Amino acid sequence: MEQRLQHLRNILAEIHDLDAAASALSWDQQTYMPPGGAQGRGQVRGTLQRLSHDKFVSEEMGELLEQLEPYAARLNPDSDEARIILDAARLFRKQARVPSELVVEQAEATSIATQAWQQARRENNFALFQPHLERIFHLKRQYAALFAPYEHIYDPLLDDFERGMTTSQVKAIFSTLRPQQVALIQAIQSRPQVDDSFLHQPFDPQKQWEFSVEVITKFGYDWNRGRLDKAPHPFSQALGLDDVRITTRLIPDFFNPMLFGTMHETGHALYSQGIDPELDRTSVAHGASLAVHESQSRMWENLVGRSYPFWQGFYPRLQEFFTSQLGSISLDTFYRGINKVQPSLIRVEADEATYNLHVMLRLEVEIALIEGSLDTADLPEFWNIRMQEYLGVRPPNDKDGVLQDIHWSIGLVGYFSTYALGNLVSAQLWECILRDIPDLPEQIQRGEFSALLSWLREKIHRHGAKYAPQELVERVTGSPIDPAPYLRYLQNKYGEIYGL
Amino acid sequence: MEQRLQHLRNILAEIHDLDAAASALSWDQQTYMPPGGAQGRGQVRGTLQRLSHDKFVSEEMGELLEQLEPYAARLNPDSDEARIILDAARLFRKQARVPSELVVEQAEATSIATQAWQQARRENNFALFQPHLERIFHLKRQYAALFAPYEHIYDPLLDDFERGMTTSQVKAIFSTLRPQQVALIQAIQSRPQVDDSFLHQPFDPQKQWEFSVEVITKFGYDWNRGRLDKAPHPFSQALGLDDVRITTRLIPDFFNPMLFGTMHETGHALYSQGIDPELDRTSVAHGASLAVHESQSRMWENLVGRSYPFWQGFYPRLQEFFTSQLGSISLDTFYRGINKVQPSLIRVEADEATYNLHVMLRLEVEIALIEGSLDTADLPEFWNIRMQEYLGVRPPNDKDGVLQDIHWSIGLVGYFSTYALGNLVSAQLWECILRDIPDLPEQIQRGEFSALLSWLREKIHRHGAKYAPQELVERVTGSPIDPAPYLRYLQNKYGEIYGL
Repeated sequence: MEQRLQHLRNILAEIHDLDAAASALSWDQQTYMPPGGAQGRGQVRGTLQRLSHDKFVSEEMGELLEQLEPYAARLNPDSDEARIILDAARLFRKQARVPSELVVEQAEATSIATQAWQQARRENNFALFQPHLERIFHLKRQYAALFAPYEHIYDPLLDDFERGMTTSQVKAIFSTLRPQQVALIQAIQSRPQVDDSFLHQPFDPQKQWEFSVEVITKFGYDWNRGRLDKAPHPFSQALGLDDVRITTRLIPDFFNPMLFGTMHETGHALYSQGIDPELDRTSVAHGASLAVHESQSRMWENLVGRSYPFWQGFYPRLQEFFTSQLGSISLDTFYRGINKVQPSLIRVEADEATYNLHVMLRLEVEIALIEGSLDTADLPEFWNIRMQEYLGVRPPNDKDGVLQDIHWSIGLVGYFSTYALGNLVSAQLWECILRDIPDLPEQIQRGEFSALLSWLREKIHRHGAKYAPQELVERVTGSPIDPAPYLRYLQNKYGEIYGL
Repeated sequence: MEQRLQHLRNILAEIHDLDAAASALSWDQQTYMPPGGAQGRGQVRGTLQRLSHDKFVSEEMGELLEQLEPYAARLNPDSDEARIILDAARLFRKQARVPSELVVEQAEATSIATQAWQQARRENNFALFQPHLERIFHLKRQYAALFAPYEHIYDPLLDDFERGMTTSQVKAIFSTLRPQQVALIQAIQSRPQVDDSFLHQPFDPQKQWEFSVEVITKFGYDWNRGRLDKAPHPFSQALGLDDVRITTRLIPDFFNPMLFGTMHETGHALYSQGIDPELDRTSVAHGASLAVHESQSRMWENLVGRSYPFWQGFYPRLQEFFTSQLGSISLDTFYRGINKVQPSLIRVEADEATYNLHVMLRLEVEIALIEGSLDTADLPEFWNIRMQEYLGVRPPNDKDGVLQDIHWSIGLVGYFSTYALGNLVSAQLWECILRDIPDLPEQIQRGEFSALLSWLREKIHRHGAKYAPQELVERVTGSPIDPAPYLRYLQNKYGEIYGL
């Protein structure tokens, strides 16, 4: 069995290497690739993806796992070996169900749909995208049907991004969250508003860069195993456990995107840099799920980076960098400015209090479309009504409404809710962290993050995807994903800022 | 047969894509990869290489080629189809002869040898490297023996880099060349020497960069399908026919490396950017050989970039960039300075007149070591005696003598002579070009390179590796590789500069 396990690890290592190469190509494509390289790059990535998939669903793999699964059941269930075998078996069973014709059909449909979406968005014309959206959800329905029986047809789609999470679970969480977030926003709207105009003035990009580098270095980002580059849409990418890169964008007259964006991507990167090397080159050598990943990025961006203690420590330094812009702005004014709540049309620009509502709307749309209870033709109106209801704003056009996100056009259905779940997990973890490290706020004020990072390394990072996300959250916090801590966090924070 | 040909093209495309991914990883490794990524990167590249090799020597490939070869023989011998099939068959036969044990053994030996070489060089101690060099040549002898019968045991090694070239051919070429180059250098040494001290002063790196970009843009480098980055050891890398990148290095107080290095790499890149897209994703979608590739890089670097007409046109512009450094240096002084001949110890710093002699010495060493007529222990002395004989200089230590090149330690044996052959081919082509475009010097003076580039595209670039290098050179120039044009070129150029 030892030999068979080694054989499995060899195949998983090969698959990992193909995927790592694809990650490197993806990083390159989003940072340095010249425009002319796009077509050839698409072919190369397609080939790597196909080879990786073929290796995973090979007969050899099937037979090996059949022999190894009973063996895994006899091992310590928390051992790396057991988890590696069982995760491979789980993925094998998922991937083996998908006929390659459907994979090809999806690839073709999304490739055309992405172009149609770009044009529709440019021309502010939803009708151009509608038939493609229709087709994508049609194929997603076919895809989901492969995994019957299920409680809800949306479950298999969720599972692709948030292993084990079900539609009814997310719905339950969101239906607790929604009315309270809506109420909070309405309460905030009734109070005197915060002025953040000082954030919108020229900030030398080179200095923005330097300050951000100073911050994430203190966070504990390992530059020997990573690097920071510019990209139009910031992201973090693990090219391997020892090569985890982040990207950011510089807006010369707005301070936030570079700083908070970099903190966010650093949160993702710290997670990947902290995975146990013993898990390397297996299918669990990455984060537990998108939500758990997002819990890390949002924690460093918001619970740390937008907190009062953080700026008690770092604001004087920031003022040194930008004396003319911030020299006369008090710490309290600054803190309130970076935490201003303002319901708006665009998800990616939303603040902490409104963000989740954007996500909930998208979940509703996805469920309705996959169930067939909503016609794609009626989608823009559905969207606009919900925006009014949840956020009190109504998109003046589809470009800034239903056409704003690329996700559906590239075939990502089931993805959005992980953004909101990540927020919830971040606050849920934070309550535990504060119990374990009561003086964390003082540490943060002093620019000390090593206790926090060690806690995350120990409880979350090192495990990679050994545990399913809900299992991991429950192991660490004692409860499954729970909206209460995040609501408490929002109510405390904004209660204080807006005097509720 | 159409179907089988398509099947072959599909497999070749897969192999190409794996190789293209490996090229991208190699580019990344030499430009942006963080140090920590090295080990994981090695694993990923190893996997890609193995998968690519396995696909090439698969039974499927063997059977397919067996069916297609007779078919190719009935096609127009110059057709893409015939050449693609025959080249794949040639490579299949070569690669299939090599047992994977030997591949692994070579990989292990070179991996250790590279470290030993680095240490030996650092400590200026040849003895540390000697046993590894011994082992590498032992394995190379085993490798070459797989291809018996041959005229000379060195032939199969040469063939890996310069397809079809034999040891006796190279020896014949070099034995014509050597005495005349030695005589030329001695004649130059007896004349008043050139002053190039003005090249060794501070040149703002940013301006060096900008001037170089201006030059290679005029050359015709396609920025939509390429980019320029910094790297410690400059190189050009085709990540695909539509993504051909170059790198360079900036020395703040020496003007030459950035400018002439960039021209050199651009020459390689123009070749790759000019290959017929019909050949893409086959085994002939790259340059015909290392020598033909080097003919392109040396042509743009030397025959264009170190020519008098070029600087008649570009020197005023260069003086605008570096007024304080070059404002008072005349065109003639500048031209003589960048063409200064100075026998020296280090190959990569050698000028046009001395460069080939460095190469010839290395060829002699390789042949003697592979034949077994030279003991590795006697190598340093062999080296130093030849240096004295050919160049009139004797290395004071092995670091700047026999230990200067990385090639042998990484298993490159049979490679060096292509550098010199490339010089010869560049001059041989140039004589044809001047016959076809008699006013080329005037065009160059005006900064017009499109006729030159079109000629190269038509005669050389577009064919990729469809033709063997000697076949290509003979098709274009009417004769196989011939040292006479290069000797005429050197004698004219240096005759004028040194008043011989």
